[in-house]
Amino acid sequence: MSDLQKPEKNPEMKIVTAAVIVIGDEILSGRTKDKNMLYMAERLNEIGVQLREARIIPDVEAEIVDAVNACRKKYDYVFTTGGIGPTHDDITANAIAAAFNVGIDHHPEAMDILTRHYQTSGIEFNDARKRMARIPDGASLVDNPVSKAPGFQIENVIVMAGVPIIMQAMFEGFADQIHGGAKMLSRTLGVNMPEGKVAAQLGALQEKYPNVSMGSYPYFKQGDVGTNLVFRSIDEGDLNRSFQELSDQLKKEGVELAETT
Amino acid sequence: MSDLQKPEKNPEMKIVTAAVIVIGDEILSGRTKDKNMLYMAERLNEIGVQLREARIIPDVEAEIVDAVNACRKKYDYVFTTGGIGPTHDDITANAIAAAFNVGIDHHPEAMDILTRHYQTSGIEFNDARKRMARIPDGASLVDNPVSKAPGFQIENVIVMAGVPIIMQAMFEGFADQIHGGAKMLSRTLGVNMPEGKVAAQLGALQEKYPNVSMGSYPYFKQGDVGTNLVFRSIDEGDLNRSFQELSDQLKKEGVELAETT
Repeated sequence: MSDLQKPEKNPEMKIVTAAVIVIGDEILSGRTKDKNMLYMAERLNEIGVQLREARIIPDVEAEIVDAVNACRKKYDYVFTTGGIGPTHDDITANAIAAAFNVGIDHHPEAMDILTRHYQTSGIEFNDARKRMARIPDGASLVDNPVSKAPGFQIENVIVMAGVPIIMQAMFEGFADQIHGGAKMLSRTLGVNMPEGKVAAQLGALQEKYPNVSMGSYPYFKQGDVGTNLVFRSIDEGDLNRSFQELSDQLKKEGVELAETT
Repeated sequence: MSDLQKPEKNPEMKIVTAAVIVIGDEILSGRTKDKNMLYMAERLNEIGVQLREARIIPDVEAEIVDAVNACRKKYDYVFTTGGIGPTHDDITANAIAAAFNVGIDHHPEAMDILTRHYQTSGIEFNDARKRMARIPDGASLVDNPVSKAPGFQIENVIVMAGVPIIMQAMFEGFADQIHGGAKMLSRTLGVNMPEGKVAAQLGALQEKYPNVSMGSYPYFKQGDVGTNLVFRSIDEGDLNRSFQELSDQLKKEGVELAETT
């Protein structure tokens, strides 16, 4: 595929990128299915941010530090999920402080939020729960409307909970602070033939339209072999032109086509 | 969590690690749900290999080279999925050759397999399809019983297809060549209370049993708040002792317990 990350003169065509870092042994062991990566892939796309990488890493401080430091230099935004609860295995806040080489302490605003929350609900605000108010120095809080314990943002890194309903609520509360760029547009052409048959044509078209990314995804359904040809671009004109060109060529050859999503 | 990666005198207790690298724009865009990571997480665990990291990266050569080179030095095995088909966006074989700094050419055995396959099925063995026989120098083939185009192994990197049914068939054919080590054993205790309440006890127990990794996973089901406490270890004795100790403590306190999987 062509690399679409080029500087553009038109600010609307600015490419904004992100990485997602899923922190949690339970995902790597196969015990829990990650739902956060897919959620963010779709939502970031809608906001005009391209998810360029996802990493799933264990609850090990050095691994978190390395992944966060690699990704925060490379992408406009880094979203982490997991490891900000009250138990000993929740080490994300500490690891982020280490990654940024800053201190970490109970954050006054986070302490206020949690004190009120536990007073209202009549639950003891014990030391373990106070761990959830520990926020790296210089970070700002990310609201948690579900269970109150906040996430946080430090520079371009946004730290969220791992439980999907909480992560999604945090993300949606934070979404209007994300500065999106060009939206990646997409069209999909389903053809009733194996990808090896359309490969040469598709390759030639890819060379002609370098700023449209053309992907070929074969499928095998009940003995049926077909291919989804996915065209993606931030340039609507080229997207439609290239899509039409291949459609016309294949129609002439008598290939059965279906535009799918 | 405690880091379990310690050298062990008993070879049965050897820790064998792996990373999975999922290559594909379609996963990052949210268009396709990855099923390969979860499949391998579970199967590797059964074989005595611990999945320590998963990365999802785009179809960009430099990204593939960087991810493969980072992971192959760090883990015993690296499994990649995706990007070995006949179309221009299938660049994994080239990228792996670049990562190992070796040449790449049509592999005689792969050419034989594909020549026979396309002869039998009466399909043209065109140049695009011949791309699927391009294998980095020094690699050995990984059998593809589904659609014939082989994967390959080069040193500790195993390159497989992205389509789940093909990936799974490749993996299963290759599985007996994987040298597993200690099996990670796991027990899960479900408690009907929020994790903040059990956190102190769990933390103390974790300190007492450093070679058992204790994870706490809250859940919220129809207004019900509970926590799954997951104990994992390669040491069955310590696993059972620590699990029993917490169970006994909580039972005494009148907490409702359920051992789940």
